[in-house]
Amino acid sequence: MRIVVLTGGIGGARFLLGVRAYAREVGAEVTAVVNVGDDLLLHGLKVCPDLDSVMYTLGGGADPERGWGRVGESWTVKQELAAYGAEPSWFGLGDKDIATHLVRTTMLNAGYPLHAVTEALATRWQPGVRLLPATDDRLETHAVVDLDGGQRAIHFQEWWVRHRAAVPTHRFVFVGAETAKPAPGVAEAIAGADVVLIAPSNPVVSIAPILAVPGLRAAVADGPAPVVGVSPIIGGAPVRGMADRCLEVLGVECSAAGVGRLYGGRPAGGLLDGWLVAEEDAGTVVPEVTVRAAPLRMTDEAATVAMVRAALELT
Amino acid sequence: MRIVVLTGGIGGARFLLGVRAYAREVGAEVTAVVNVGDDLLLHGLKVCPDLDSVMYTLGGGADPERGWGRVGESWTVKQELAAYGAEPSWFGLGDKDIATHLVRTTMLNAGYPLHAVTEALATRWQPGVRLLPATDDRLETHAVVDLDGGQRAIHFQEWWVRHRAAVPTHRFVFVGAETAKPAPGVAEAIAGADVVLIAPSNPVVSIAPILAVPGLRAAVADGPAPVVGVSPIIGGAPVRGMADRCLEVLGVECSAAGVGRLYGGRPAGGLLDGWLVAEEDAGTVVPEVTVRAAPLRMTDEAATVAMVRAALELT
Repeated sequence: MRIVVLTGGIGGARFLLGVRAYAREVGAEVTAVVNVGDDLLLHGLKVCPDLDSVMYTLGGGADPERGWGRVGESWTVKQELAAYGAEPSWFGLGDKDIATHLVRTTMLNAGYPLHAVTEALATRWQPGVRLLPATDDRLETHAVVDLDGGQRAIHFQEWWVRHRAAVPTHRFVFVGAETAKPAPGVAEAIAGADVVLIAPSNPVVSIAPILAVPGLRAAVADGPAPVVGVSPIIGGAPVRGMADRCLEVLGVECSAAGVGRLYGGRPAGGLLDGWLVAEEDAGTVVPEVTVRAAPLRMTDEAATVAMVRAALELT
Repeated sequence: MRIVVLTGGIGGARFLLGVRAYAREVGAEVTAVVNVGDDLLLHGLKVCPDLDSVMYTLGGGADPERGWGRVGESWTVKQELAAYGAEPSWFGLGDKDIATHLVRTTMLNAGYPLHAVTEALATRWQPGVRLLPATDDRLETHAVVDLDGGQRAIHFQEWWVRHRAAVPTHRFVFVGAETAKPAPGVAEAIAGADVVLIAPSNPVVSIAPILAVPGLRAAVADGPAPVVGVSPIIGGAPVRGMADRCLEVLGVECSAAGVGRLYGGRPAGGLLDGWLVAEEDAGTVVPEVTVRAAPLRMTDEAATVAMVRAALELT
């Protein structure tokens, strides 16, 4: 059995812990297609927050308290950069984390594509699933906002981390999406999958940038594998992060039904065959999609495996 | 009074502490022209060991025990790089130090020349002397050695740090020297100096690369200012480092006389008007150079100021 998971960072990484555990039980192979829209250059270093969250989480090196970055992290470099007045100062890189970015940046500058770099980094972390960036090309999520008296496009991380999503926002654009190509292996994995899962990640800024890579939306929507999504919204609120602020920008209701309809049913030109919602959202209706309710709190691995099992039962 | 000091890293940095203290007493201006031949790229970061040793030492941030790098340093990034198997592993960058290299590399990649980057970094450290790299251009000291069954040119740092200078060595070459230009301000500082001091740095791999920048040897040798050198050799042995190994490569005797003759007297086409040697080396003769003996151990700032005063009395 081959499972493909479309995923963002932190929430998706926890979901993948359950997918991996399930896959080990049944002998399945898992490929995670990871969002790169959040990636950015900081102090000359290429930072891939979602790839790293997934890699650190599956590799046992993530900080479970903070939700991002490395466990036992220290912040010496950050303090020193601040002493130099280096900008941007609103995004903190931990010391352990910086080593990852140094290795990645060195390899990218030497000409290795991102998927090859990701594979090289993963030899240390042994995530137990195949990690693929959605694309090797530049595809950056920007937010079009009102700021400093005018309309500007700012990098998603500036919108999210610096402004805490609290600026008037018109829309998101995926810079570079038009010419991006799926990373090697991504289209093949989707075409060869027995099931495609959409992790309970932010639909607007984690899943949409993956689907914005030309060919990937069609690969999922028109592919042979059934597609099941897991709602990131429970009882009208995101489990983590600021999906509510992102959905608001799109004029989409922050609910399991709203996100389910945003993805849409495959017979109606959308993505989903099945949509797993929380027990709190039982009764959710998405046209032409099979909806099921189950406990969606990823409190531990067993709970997450049960979620995965419930999602797969929708196929 | 305007004092120019040609200098390498650690020993030169300590000497500059004395020059600065002296200059403060008498109201003089100090310009340090610093060797860049040791500079290298590590994990994509531009590292300038001599500029940093001088900057950290004069800025009060150097580690006095270890002799190089930052006081209170930590090594998290280094350990993490090792966990990734990143090479080279024989050169350790401290966490605090890495911030300096990140700022420098980012500025260099943005197009700022090294002298401008050095000035920007110095706004934090306030070294109290003007720090100038000998050149903004690439000028790298390589050692031509017998290694792995053949003759190879390896970077000075690989020779020094990795091989501890313990490989058969034919000569040193200054890669890029032919086309390097003095950094802005260097030739002007030498031309406008009241005295040029040659710090007790390694003559072969710290001072020679400075003089290898086309025009700089002539600027010193033919300039209006008297030139006084301070011997890095006391009683036949280097005060620190491996100057003995470097001198051996050139076939020069490791003594105050050997180094004094290597620099040579100005009337004979050399550099020196005066040569300050240690009390242990009283009686040293260098043709056409005024030699004087004085205590040369830089045990504290007062002792170093006395050395500087003795050197200046030779003008």
